Amino acid sequence: MTLQEKALELHREWNGKLETVSKTPINSREALSLAYTPGVAEPCKVIAENSEAAWQYTMKANTVAVVSDGSAVLGLGNIGALAAMPVMEGKAALFKEFGGVNAVPICLDTQDTEEIIKAVTWLAPAYGGINLEDISAPRCFEIEERLKEILDIPVFHDDQHGTAIVVLAGIINALKVVKKQKESCKVVVNGAGSAGVAITKLLLTYGFTNVILCDKVGIVSTSTEGLNWMQERMAKITNPNKETGSLADALKGADIFVGVSAPNIVTPEMVKTMAADSILFAMANPTPEIMPDAAKAAGARVVGTGRSDFPNQVNNVIAFPGIFKGALEGRASQITEEMKLAAANAIAGLVPDDELSEDNILPEAFNPKVAELVSQAVKSHIVR
Amino acid sequence: MTLQEKALELHREWNGKLETVSKTPINSREALSLAYTPGVAEPCKVIAENSEAAWQYTMKANTVAVVSDGSAVLGLGNIGALAAMPVMEGKAALFKEFGGVNAVPICLDTQDTEEIIKAVTWLAPAYGGINLEDISAPRCFEIEERLKEILDIPVFHDDQHGTAIVVLAGIINALKVVKKQKESCKVVVNGAGSAGVAITKLLLTYGFTNVILCDKVGIVSTSTEGLNWMQERMAKITNPNKETGSLADALKGADIFVGVSAPNIVTPEMVKTMAADSILFAMANPTPEIMPDAAKAAGARVVGTGRSDFPNQVNNVIAFPGIFKGALEGRASQITEEMKLAAANAIAGLVPDDELSEDNILPEAFNPKVAELVSQAVKSHIVR
Repeated sequence: MTLQEKALELHREWNGKLETVSKTPINSREALSLAYTPGVAEPCKVIAENSEAAWQYTMKANTVAVVSDGSAVLGLGNIGALAAMPVMEGKAALFKEFGGVNAVPICLDTQDTEEIIKAVTWLAPAYGGINLEDISAPRCFEIEERLKEILDIPVFHDDQHGTAIVVLAGIINALKVVKKQKESCKVVVNGAGSAGVAITKLLLTYGFTNVILCDKVGIVSTSTEGLNWMQERMAKITNPNKETGSLADALKGADIFVGVSAPNIVTPEMVKTMAADSILFAMANPTPEIMPDAAKAAGARVVGTGRSDFPNQVNNVIAFPGIFKGALEGRASQITEEMKLAAANAIAGLVPDDELSEDNILPEAFNPKVAELVSQAVKSHIVR
Repeated sequence: MTLQEKALELHREWNGKLETVSKTPINSREALSLAYTPGVAEPCKVIAENSEAAWQYTMKANTVAVVSDGSAVLGLGNIGALAAMPVMEGKAALFKEFGGVNAVPICLDTQDTEEIIKAVTWLAPAYGGINLEDISAPRCFEIEERLKEILDIPVFHDDQHGTAIVVLAGIINALKVVKKQKESCKVVVNGAGSAGVAITKLLLTYGFTNVILCDKVGIVSTSTEGLNWMQERMAKITNPNKETGSLADALKGADIFVGVSAPNIVTPEMVKTMAADSILFAMANPTPEIMPDAAKAAGARVVGTGRSDFPNQVNNVIAFPGIFKGALEGRASQITEEMKLAAANAIAGLVPDDELSEDNILPEAFNPKVAELVSQAVKSHIVR
């Protein structure tokens, strides 16, 4: 059986992947009277008097909503709310399996920005956090920013920030391998969508100064036409040397390439024009911007992809479960840049220096220490 | 420790009552690649091509949303979305414990009818059914009716229909005990809110002809002023003899009283004016319209309440888990009057004739056959 067939069988066999379960057995009159009427009136009354008590007496304390409108699902594009369900259920299952965090898949049958903001605002009370997922750019930026203003719980678009955090963790360790400093590196990020924008922002926050963002039009600059509002904003804070031209032009002399774009668009010739000991994260799925062996043959030292069958997999599952675990345990009202940097540093630190190598810059997803250490790092960087 | 203290402790100890759990362990690279990327793309693609497939490949097939706006919670009134969470979590836990149905609590932070309708419409794709809960009348009627028109999955307001089904089941058996026929009975329902309206409708559907609905104003009739639109509609289809006056007037000669109203508003004197072998369901919580011993001393033969410490408890938990179990298994697009009658008959049938008595007209909630038999009855009455 192929992986595809096995995946279909798994989903069919179980009617999806997630279930809801009572934490306490309800198998006697007394249990029923405690978990439901009349006993349940007591926590209701306590919360009605003091909303803070919801964090003690309800599942809110340890539950996030995984919200999508199905507009940008995996590499499949705009397949809609219903067809996005397997991904959101899977994401919810990963939250619990990797971080011990309960998660509820919410697939919204609207792709109107205002309606999505309203829907999430209305359903937020039950949850301790909102994980946005697979919402297309640039709508995802406005939805996230507006919800962060409205809600008093963390709102986190994993396609943006989860990806950015893991990429930064990988870059932190890759720089150790190639013995370069962030201050002297030229970085090219290709793909000015949700992930590319967030990666660029986090790299700037971390301290990279020369970051160039590219998209189909080539280098995103203040003179580029047809940019959306977020890309215009990014043009102002990137590309300090005002370079122009194509991705190939941008890559000349670059130390780091980060691709969240399309298959096979980086050629060996382009890699050869990069600086010595170059680092490439070619994360287009399933086919990377350049295959690792080709990149290495052309001179790259460290190559990461989104795939589990190559070394250095950039996999969000090493970030989001621990991030929300820490944010919820620490009752964070948002996930700040400091918390993201702390998560990236914690992930990077999970690979001991004596195990660090060109092919080992990121921790194994199934290392049980990952979520725990990420959550501790995030929790200790919550500011009130 | 009092029940209240125990209930608080239970909720605090567990951070609420519900959790989400992966149906399949995700503890290896292969498991991750099947439950999440890249394997998860396969069910997504299948559903994108044929939405029906969501019933096979996602949790939708066996999951309901428990939706409230917190406007009419238990006897506590309008305590809002957040404070309603313990009830919705509890309800969700009961769905699973009693019916094997997954349920997700959705507490909406709006009490605007149009906004609630929009929110439920948007979040419906992930669910196989919608259980509305603790929404105040008359808004609940419009919300339910409109959602039934919009959605292709069952929408069921349990405070209305769950209560009505269990009351009808109790009345079916009580009539056997007192050896009366429905056609000759005069029925008085007191409390023209969500439960009272639904009980009245279902009794009429079942074949009672002389049903009088009362509220604070007394008998609801076509000449009563200040009725809401649903009460006006009910006035036209009830009270065939055009009686007028107070609840006390209505009860004269009545065979059956159903109270979903307020404590202690039925006096022994009023019961004495009822027909011989009268049946009373005094379901105000926690204090009934009349206490069972007082009612019996005044001549009542069968008395039911909402309480577990008296015989004949009217408890929705013997209805809703089986109803949704059957509706989901049979892929019902709505829960029809026929399905409600089938559920009531199934519940009544769970008390064997030779065990039937004045103090035993309804099955025990913890009887494992209840949900199974109710679901089979509901399933066999689905019309396509």
